[in-house]
Amino acid sequence: MTYSPNFEKGNGLVPAIIQDYQTGKILMLGFLNKLAWEKTLETGLVHFYSRTRDKLWLKGETSGHYLVLKEIYVDCDEDTLLFKVEPKGPVCHEGYMSCFYRKLENGKLKIVEKKLYHPEEVYGKA
Amino acid sequence: MTYSPNFEKGNGLVPAIIQDYQTGKILMLGFLNKLAWEKTLETGLVHFYSRTRDKLWLKGETSGHYLVLKEIYVDCDEDTLLFKVEPKGPVCHEGYMSCFYRKLENGKLKIVEKKLYHPEEVYGKA
Repeated sequence: MTYSPNFEKGNGLVPAIIQDYQTGKILMLGFLNKLAWEKTLETGLVHFYSRTRDKLWLKGETSGHYLVLKEIYVDCDEDTLLFKVEPKGPVCHEGYMSCFYRKLENGKLKIVEKKLYHPEEVYGKA
Repeated sequence: MTYSPNFEKGNGLVPAIIQDYQTGKILMLGFLNKLAWEKTLETGLVHFYSRTRDKLWLKGETSGHYLVLKEIYVDCDEDTLLFKVEPKGPVCHEGYMSCFYRKLENGKLKIVEKKLYHPEEVYGKA
């Protein structure tokens, strides 16, 4: 597969929206560089480029909560991706199904999801 | 309302996923700077920062297809937004409901949505 999105506009990175292919729930957003894109296509598991750690990041490498790629959509400018996935566990490292577990209400963040696991049991103590 | 997401990690910009609050459909992704964030909260209409045009951009200013903000979600790192919106018309400037009107299949982009209008009738000829 040789198609590649436009990595130049975002200085080598494209954002990918991660959506549960069954429920339609938005799980997270991550950035891919060209290597992450190639690894994702090759393995069928979503890889990102971690801006914080400056390295390739297989989502789930520590937790086992991989994102199995089901469908890929590309936007009109070919600089943003939408991945429909099957999540192998809660996606957020804080223990929630989605990274968007907080809603802004009256200027304050309010938790609107149930915590599904304790992060220290999955990732160890910081 | 004084809450602000973390604009520093993305060099002054945060991505916002735009989702239809009724259907759950992903409509587009855009970037906001601090001014776009403030204008969005102030008006209830989604504003972006256009990377291509380097300016504040009220989505719908030409087409009338505004995005009326219904709910705001913030991710765990507070550097990505999820806006649930009521779209006042098709969102993509190519004439489709969503900017993600193409699916990658066997290495090729395939159009999977119906064209709802002809862009030149809304935006004029290029």
